[in-house]
Amino acid sequence: MSEAPDPGSWACPLPIRDHDRVVIGHGGGGRLSGELVADLFLPAFGVTPSEVLHDAATIDLGEQRVAFSTDSYVVRPLFFPGGSIGELAVNGTVNDLSMAGAVPIAMSSGFILEEGLSLEVLARVATDMGKAAQRAGVRLATGDTKVVDSGLADGMYINTTGIGLIPEGVHIAPTRATPGDRVIVSGPIGQHGIAVMSQREGLQFGTEVRSDTAPLADLVAVMLEACRDLHVLRDPTRGGLATSLCEIAEAAGVGIDFEETAVPVPPEVAAACSLLGLDPLHVANEGRLIAIVPESSTDDVLAAMTAHPDGREAVVIGALTENHPGVVTARTAFGARRIVDLPLGEQLPRIC
Amino acid sequence: MSEAPDPGSWACPLPIRDHDRVVIGHGGGGRLSGELVADLFLPAFGVTPSEVLHDAATIDLGEQRVAFSTDSYVVRPLFFPGGSIGELAVNGTVNDLSMAGAVPIAMSSGFILEEGLSLEVLARVATDMGKAAQRAGVRLATGDTKVVDSGLADGMYINTTGIGLIPEGVHIAPTRATPGDRVIVSGPIGQHGIAVMSQREGLQFGTEVRSDTAPLADLVAVMLEACRDLHVLRDPTRGGLATSLCEIAEAAGVGIDFEETAVPVPPEVAAACSLLGLDPLHVANEGRLIAIVPESSTDDVLAAMTAHPDGREAVVIGALTENHPGVVTARTAFGARRIVDLPLGEQLPRIC
Repeated sequence: MSEAPDPGSWACPLPIRDHDRVVIGHGGGGRLSGELVADLFLPAFGVTPSEVLHDAATIDLGEQRVAFSTDSYVVRPLFFPGGSIGELAVNGTVNDLSMAGAVPIAMSSGFILEEGLSLEVLARVATDMGKAAQRAGVRLATGDTKVVDSGLADGMYINTTGIGLIPEGVHIAPTRATPGDRVIVSGPIGQHGIAVMSQREGLQFGTEVRSDTAPLADLVAVMLEACRDLHVLRDPTRGGLATSLCEIAEAAGVGIDFEETAVPVPPEVAAACSLLGLDPLHVANEGRLIAIVPESSTDDVLAAMTAHPDGREAVVIGALTENHPGVVTARTAFGARRIVDLPLGEQLPRIC
Repeated sequence: MSEAPDPGSWACPLPIRDHDRVVIGHGGGGRLSGELVADLFLPAFGVTPSEVLHDAATIDLGEQRVAFSTDSYVVRPLFFPGGSIGELAVNGTVNDLSMAGAVPIAMSSGFILEEGLSLEVLARVATDMGKAAQRAGVRLATGDTKVVDSGLADGMYINTTGIGLIPEGVHIAPTRATPGDRVIVSGPIGQHGIAVMSQREGLQFGTEVRSDTAPLADLVAVMLEACRDLHVLRDPTRGGLATSLCEIAEAAGVGIDFEETAVPVPPEVAAACSLLGLDPLHVANEGRLIAIVPESSTDDVLAAMTAHPDGREAVVIGALTENHPGVVTARTAFGARRIVDLPLGEQLPRIC
């Protein structure tokens, strides 16, 4: 008689866990990315984990608290319905600053260009960056360009790093999530990932799915006017809504329960996910946020959001609980509760 | 009879000027890099040139003046005599901040990793970064990791972006160069470029040439103690000493005259350059600086530098003049004066 399989030893699906080389999933923002940071980068850098848990670091400069955040963009293709790598590179970093409650001030841009890239393509991308920076009110202050040999960069990669000022009295951090708090999502999810994927693979789903890429600084400003004491903000990019909720639950040691049917999933995203075998909760967004807010302020924050063009479809999807600390559950359309977990690696690679 | 050639129409040697695609020289830090910034990035970003002439931008945050600088590192190979891409990535950005007179505070690290890269190699690079950051007194505060498909990144690329505090009373800028000022070089030149080149090409020149990669923040601190009014600092990386002097002359509209024989070129660097047909004045350095100082403070600054381990071999190589504004000349070993110009593109590609 054969032994029963031991789920704990499963290493499937790819990428495998027990490796000595970089796999695509290490860049996916899921569990493998987290392990790379915790097990390799932090020990090598000599940094303690508590310093680096957020999208943006907080730096004290004299009297000022400054948010500081970096992201490299390797999205393929460079242009997709609703945006380009240029807009994404500005909005993504602006949003990481906004998720610390910071007002974006300045941004750097570091280009790695592939020899042979059309200068016209580069100019279009740079123009998209200029427009996005103007829209977000951030100054493109310093830059750098490197060129690598043909074949070694897939057109271009862009790094942007931003600094922003955190207003006095604002203390937004994953660890501040508290049982009783409500979970708000600012709008429909899954559009960015599906837009990039469909462009890359030449797929069509009736209605065109367009990326939601947008700067969130302005929306965050009206939310902070409604409630200075927002506990957590997070933009659910790589790994999607599920990953962000799991990370918050783990950081704060609280449970999160949400209604799966309350999460706004556009029909065309649902159709695409169903066709491709994807979970919309794991698909990347680039112009949405999750807010964890004190119960007593929920109505005020929601009202401020729905009055703003970037938060018109904001909804409360759930609440935090002291039961099952660190665990996220979703109530399904059938009324059952299921555990929502971090994806291992990358459901859709090279999405940002 | 054929017409005389018109030097103005020459487009040789490669890379050619009249192109619609990115060439390797666009990343070389020379004239082509400058044209890409001036003709493509600045118009696209909607930024005026005066805002972005230095290695580091200056940002006003309340009472504080903050230096902000970014660089991507694509050096090949990842390890070379005297250093690695990891050390380079920390020191290079620390040095850009130091060249604004700023005290480095925090740094971001953005990794673009190639699928299949050995995690052991990544750990060695990250450890080098951690040690270099500790040596330079800078905090590795935030990071990001992306993974691209095998074949699309040559192992890894690293972006680092740094922020530093500019002390009160310090105003270092290329435009402050003034006729009468003296030019100091902090030590022997050309070692970094030759070290990387010889490792890459498997060349040997009797004595091993090791990279000079080092953080310059501490040396700059003792220089500022000797003279708060340093006019210009510049680390002659891509494009070498010649490029830095040309850029300063152009930015300030002054002439610079220096003695070619006063420039410290180690014999093994001279031998390698002679063999490879390179000009040591154009070879990259990663642990050297040029200082433009008021004549009256020259002795004090030089004394402070030569008393410091990173400036032991500092020498005065020339002076600024109101003659020939924007032009740099070198007096050769034979007593003749020659004009020193910006290189067009990249003498040694992928050097940092």
